[in-house]
Amino acid sequence: MNVDDLRGTTVGFLASGGLDSCTVTHWLTTRGVRVVSFTADLGQPDEERLEDVAQRMLACGAAEAVVMPLRREMGEAGIAAVQAQATYEGGYWNTTPLAREVTVRGVLPMLRERGIGVLSHGATGRGNDQVRFQLLANMLDPAVEVYAPWRDPAFLEAFGGREEMVDYCARHGLPVRSTRASLYSTDANLLGLTHEAGELESLLTPASFVQPGMGVRPTEAPDRPQRVTIRFEKGRPVSIDGVAVVDAAELFERANAVAGAHGVGINLHLVENRFVGIKSRGVYEAPGMELLGTAYAFVLQTILDRRARRLFDACAGFLAEQVYQGYGADLGSRLAQEVATGVAELVTATVTVELYKGTVGFVSLTDAPHSVYDEENASMSSVGSFDHLDSEGFVRVLGVGARAASLRGQVRRPAT
Amino acid sequence: MNVDDLRGTTVGFLASGGLDSCTVTHWLTTRGVRVVSFTADLGQPDEERLEDVAQRMLACGAAEAVVMPLRREMGEAGIAAVQAQATYEGGYWNTTPLAREVTVRGVLPMLRERGIGVLSHGATGRGNDQVRFQLLANMLDPAVEVYAPWRDPAFLEAFGGREEMVDYCARHGLPVRSTRASLYSTDANLLGLTHEAGELESLLTPASFVQPGMGVRPTEAPDRPQRVTIRFEKGRPVSIDGVAVVDAAELFERANAVAGAHGVGINLHLVENRFVGIKSRGVYEAPGMELLGTAYAFVLQTILDRRARRLFDACAGFLAEQVYQGYGADLGSRLAQEVATGVAELVTATVTVELYKGTVGFVSLTDAPHSVYDEENASMSSVGSFDHLDSEGFVRVLGVGARAASLRGQVRRPAT
Amino acid sequence: MNVDDLRGTTVGFLASGGLDSCTVTHWLTTRGVRVVSFTADLGQPDEERLEDVAQRMLACGAAEAVVMPLRREMGEAGIAAVQAQATYEGGYWNTTPLAREVTVRGVLPMLRERGIGVLSHGATGRGNDQVRFQLLANMLDPAVEVYAPWRDPAFLEAFGGREEMVDYCARHGLPVRSTRASLYSTDANLLGLTHEAGELESLLTPASFVQPGMGVRPTEAPDRPQRVTIRFEKGRPVSIDGVAVVDAAELFERANAVAGAHGVGINLHLVENRFVGIKSRGVYEAPGMELLGTAYAFVLQTILDRRARRLFDACAGFLAEQVYQGYGADLGSRLAQEVATGVAELVTATVTVELYKGTVGFVSLTDAPHSVYDEENASMSSVGSFDHLDSEGFVRVLGVGARAASLRGQVRRPAT
Amino acid sequence: MNVDDLRGTTVGFLASGGLDSCTVTHWLTTRGVRVVSFTADLGQPDEERLEDVAQRMLACGAAEAVVMPLRREMGEAGIAAVQAQATYEGGYWNTTPLAREVTVRGVLPMLRERGIGVLSHGATGRGNDQVRFQLLANMLDPAVEVYAPWRDPAFLEAFGGREEMVDYCARHGLPVRSTRASLYSTDANLLGLTHEAGELESLLTPASFVQPGMGVRPTEAPDRPQRVTIRFEKGRPVSIDGVAVVDAAELFERANAVAGAHGVGINLHLVENRFVGIKSRGVYEAPGMELLGTAYAFVLQTILDRRARRLFDACAGFLAEQVYQGYGADLGSRLAQEVATGVAELVTATVTVELYKGTVGFVSLTDAPHSVYDEENASMSSVGSFDHLDSEGFVRVLGVGARAASLRGQVRRPAT
Repeated sequence: MNVDDLRGTTVGFLASGGLDSCTVTHWLTTRGVRVVSFTADLGQPDEERLEDVAQRMLACGAAEAVVMPLRREMGEAGIAAVQAQATYEGGYWNTTPLAREVTVRGVLPMLRERGIGVLSHGATGRGNDQVRFQLLANMLDPAVEVYAPWRDPAFLEAFGGREEMVDYCARHGLPVRSTRASLYSTDANLLGLTHEAGELESLLTPASFVQPGMGVRPTEAPDRPQRVTIRFEKGRPVSIDGVAVVDAAELFERANAVAGAHGVGINLHLVENRFVGIKSRGVYEAPGMELLGTAYAFVLQTILDRRARRLFDACAGFLAEQVYQGYGADLGSRLAQEVATGVAELVTATVTVELYKGTVGFVSLTDAPHSVYDEENASMSSVGSFDHLDSEGFVRVLGVGARAASLRGQVRRPAT
Repeated sequence: MNVDDLRGTTVGFLASGGLDSCTVTHWLTTRGVRVVSFTADLGQPDEERLEDVAQRMLACGAAEAVVMPLRREMGEAGIAAVQAQATYEGGYWNTTPLAREVTVRGVLPMLRERGIGVLSHGATGRGNDQVRFQLLANMLDPAVEVYAPWRDPAFLEAFGGREEMVDYCARHGLPVRSTRASLYSTDANLLGLTHEAGELESLLTPASFVQPGMGVRPTEAPDRPQRVTIRFEKGRPVSIDGVAVVDAAELFERANAVAGAHGVGINLHLVENRFVGIKSRGVYEAPGMELLGTAYAFVLQTILDRRARRLFDACAGFLAEQVYQGYGADLGSRLAQEVATGVAELVTATVTVELYKGTVGFVSLTDAPHSVYDEENASMSSVGSFDHLDSEGFVRVLGVGARAASLRGQVRRPAT
Repeated sequence: MNVDDLRGTTVGFLASGGLDSCTVTHWLTTRGVRVVSFTADLGQPDEERLEDVAQRMLACGAAEAVVMPLRREMGEAGIAAVQAQATYEGGYWNTTPLAREVTVRGVLPMLRERGIGVLSHGATGRGNDQVRFQLLANMLDPAVEVYAPWRDPAFLEAFGGREEMVDYCARHGLPVRSTRASLYSTDANLLGLTHEAGELESLLTPASFVQPGMGVRPTEAPDRPQRVTIRFEKGRPVSIDGVAVVDAAELFERANAVAGAHGVGINLHLVENRFVGIKSRGVYEAPGMELLGTAYAFVLQTILDRRARRLFDACAGFLAEQVYQGYGADLGSRLAQEVATGVAELVTATVTVELYKGTVGFVSLTDAPHSVYDEENASMSSVGSFDHLDSEGFVRVLGVGARAASLRGQVRRPAT
Repeated sequence: MNVDDLRGTTVGFLASGGLDSCTVTHWLTTRGVRVVSFTADLGQPDEERLEDVAQRMLACGAAEAVVMPLRREMGEAGIAAVQAQATYEGGYWNTTPLAREVTVRGVLPMLRERGIGVLSHGATGRGNDQVRFQLLANMLDPAVEVYAPWRDPAFLEAFGGREEMVDYCARHGLPVRSTRASLYSTDANLLGLTHEAGELESLLTPASFVQPGMGVRPTEAPDRPQRVTIRFEKGRPVSIDGVAVVDAAELFERANAVAGAHGVGINLHLVENRFVGIKSRGVYEAPGMELLGTAYAFVLQTILDRRARRLFDACAGFLAEQVYQGYGADLGSRLAQEVATGVAELVTATVTVELYKGTVGFVSLTDAPHSVYDEENASMSSVGSFDHLDSEGFVRVLGVGARAASLRGQVRRPAT
């Protein structure tokens, strides 16, 4: 889809408010496209007021500039991810992919209200976000078209990089917010920060190179551990240190604060597989997710039998990849999330953990009605429901198959 | 199998040298069973000299007392586990199950040399170890019978618990090593320590309750991070901080020392699913495994594409469960380990990590000929082999299916 | 649990009505145990009237003899299995395991009504059924004890095999139904027949050795194909050949009749892994399941995208093993079945198949609102929503990763 | 990549010899591109002599026309697929994807010998084959470029469809082989036929619409069953009905003949997920694959314990998707195939099956040294290594966890 196809129509543009947003918005209007900008309030930390972003978009030519209040939705997405334990390739809490879904889900009804049929975004043509925006929009409203200036030859010809945009904005007197040239780029929301590009592209750059935005590095954390108690009911955190949690946004604000202060969930390094098939390096922050996710995992240890765990783990890995790739709204994702929701029904417990220099240690777990951990059964010494002699039958039964495998040459035995 | 079946025969008894070993050995001899004790040198830390154990077994009535040198084998098992990234239920490096396999593999040829047809062990009738010993022995030599006194009614009648054994040893003047009553029980080898039972059975006992045996708690670790550089070649660590590694046992001694000193791999808490179907709580130490395993994982991030990772992860989870359950020698385990070995061929890299208060941070990765991470491809800005415009086609192609799913009612769209 | 523990109590015995049932019932009463027999009407074909079974049980000493009407429940279990496509080890529709669950679910409330605390069954100590009965009962009512005479030394001493039972019944004048000595044993219910043991234990016995009980062998089927049209709505078959289906039991009666007549789902051979770890050979019949399951699979082909299929298949395989092993009531099974139920919501279509000599061929599929198959998209020639040129971008994007893998030595290239 | 980029260079074109091949070859030469045509002898049935194809390519302007003898390689690919049991989405033996890999592996060394740097093919821009050719070429020789005329705007402008090509060939006097307009298109090789497009795009067209090319429809098969005995040694079929198999190509010729004559592996219907994310409908023939694959599966039933089967099945499903998508040469595929190869080492047996009207029935299995099926163990009545009483312990042990789950509210119990 090219800009010429859009002349005379209205486009909804997802504006972060940065240099790209200003440039694209103004450039589109000069090409005869009416632009309505949408800026999502996802609880991103350390940002300017979003109303100021909206003002700037208007100054750049937007016909309307909307701020979408999506903090609570962002928090709910975080809870669902904690329940699914869905971390990508073993560690990334998918904070940015989740934000993309929240944003697209948020903007589509607003487009429809205004009769806007084209959604535009500033994601480049090499990353995951462009795929996520497109797949999410195609799924959540197949009637909407998606226009990506960074994949439009006309735009690419005009703007090869940052400098051309700076020049352009200066030339047209656009109110770009002064930013220092960054050493890497950061995407932010309530759940976490993702840092990539720039200096981080080199694998000679340590993960600790990133200046944390949601806490401190473990090395800068307090010298004394802090205990934190989280109460889960049916899979939802309902209180932290005895103070009730009001809503999902507040939950993450508080969890981020306490965990980030101890370096928990800060500066996670990952060389990951982007959807487009290449490797990419990211450094991630998600202190609240890490805290709540670890505490949740402690409860799961007491709930899931071996078989249920196998299914749950399969769904977790599946969902993490789905969300990462922008398929978080499809059939498979819905079903995998429902498995997590089914398990969450049983996740009621009070967990106390100890935060210290980036680590989350187990302190205690109580009041868990669905825990199948039973001190008496677990005990090596007591008798209880479990008779030592029964085990003789158990192992003898299993031994029949074990011996058969060996006798039929399926096992490499030690040489004599 | 009962003791009466054994009268007049010779039994090979796996003796750790503790109260149980003394009691069982003496009791068997009084029942007319000839006992040869086998004590495995698995590199367990903080133990008395194993020759002293052997002397004690002789004093308790053993006809012969053998010390089996298995440190190198234990180290090799550790390397294989690192290559397979096979941690049970998300965190346990299976150090005890691996030791069981090394021990059984080690003892069987010695039994055959001596014409001994029965293997005996002191594992109780409620745990995993009894299953592992039996399945491993049945597989690795199906002709050998396994006798477990703790599942023999005659033994259970005589010895209900620790006190009866203490009395028995005193009565018969057996040279039991004086031990204080422990707050929990510990199994040890070169790769790690597993602590369970006693005070640890309560989920009110923090993981930090355990006094580490292979290092210090994170809170007691040095205040300054330490960088460690590991060179992997074809999946094997060949040097640490530039000093060549001579053999597998030395590898773990060094890795344990450096990682343990920083609280890495210390006091991991797990409520896990025992093979027999009940939950059990363990606290684990495996500093060297954690250090090498994490460094190895950093290399894998640069090697495995999304598809290979899916297969590798499936094999890792499968193998971890197999080893845990005592099936480490069967067909499935062999095949899964071969997948890990196939990947290991590509794991050549120099990785530097930073150890600090229990954490292992990424510092750098170089000299990795099979890494598919490519700064130029990863870059969001450069052009290279990857054309931003190509992505338009990519996402449009994917979008066809996304839209179809939505149009056919498979997606829950946001309400207007 | 031994018979002496039961003296003076009442036991609920699951009676099929055969030689075992008579023997056990009478033997228990002579040992001072009050027996209430429960016979499940599972829609088993070719059986005597179940009221006659009940009379016989009374004649053998039962204090009460109950016939439990469970045909509809059996049919519902069959629909759930079709929806989950849960066949064990690639082919067995789990008809017997499903019957065990239906039976245990049915009998437990009846035990409670009568204040009976012990459930007994006639399954032997080597098979799967003893495990299923026990696990199902333990899960569905943990207060109930399970007594298995075939694992009771007193019973085993009295009755080594069939002949002793025949003698016993003759001696006590028990009204045993005259049966010829069978060449194999058969378990039957509405969903299917499982044949095993006897002559079938030899792998020199062809699958066709079994005389079908629910239809004819393919070689004996009509020479002309028959078309059958099944209408599914939200995963349930609502009509066959345009005739509405009234309830689940009738559904399988009709499906069995039409499919069995063409040799469909007859004489499936399987050497399978029993739960107890040994191999067992079975020959199976399940004509209705095979017909409905295949038709359902044809609809799924049009519904499930690649990602959803991956999840669905994982759940199907998981559930099949769970049900087979007697874990059909646990957490994992419930969650996996819910995934199938979620997919079933989309399974609305009219499918016509052709039955011929044991085969089920695809004829047509229409009126499937959630099918994502789209002739226009699928077409190689038409243009539609899918631009041939887009593919250039698609493959170029994917090619970047492919080349990188090769350039970094991950691919074995052909020699020049 | 466009034709203008190729002017003055030499392109290796994979020519089937049909209308497309003639048109593309001639059109490229008129655009200043030197064309060397490569036609693979993959054992495709019912084709004209491939030397005649080569002559025709020369007449259309090819500078050289090479026939590549790849029958044996095709057969070896078939054996590997049988060993991996790798059928896509539950039924398709991937015969066309395997042929693509064999072809690309075959042509690359020939390109290098001739110094040709561009590979071209006639696959259209909507299917899987274009992706497979590109990924396989990129992996197996990343230096080679791939040119697809059907994704080149210049070519698409000149040739919108079949008619333009017919006109073009007539106009230029090209020796097109007269073909009737086909009702669907077919791809053929030694292993099977894939039919798609045309009339098959409608789901109102029965699978039996296709006129089989490698046998007869089940309805047209002989009225008497035929028994076939296959001997496998270490995973390879070494004889059929006692007659030794000489090479892999001959293996499939013979297996195709006997199976196809009975309608086995004929007219399999599949609505499948194409790599590009849309559904496509195919009808498949692969009689030899189906026969050998089923016989192999019968052996596997006796070899794989439950755990090994889980791993094997995961690899089979994984590999099938990989091969289908053109990733058959990557790391994951190699590892998954090695699992299959590891299992194949144990697949030694003599299997007799019965072919009848499209079905493959089990008759017998003998001489299988690694089979763990053991009549004595399997028997319900005999005593042997397996004591009925042991089962009491087995089920009691398992029952502890079952009860715990229930007591902690994880099970939905029947209402009273």
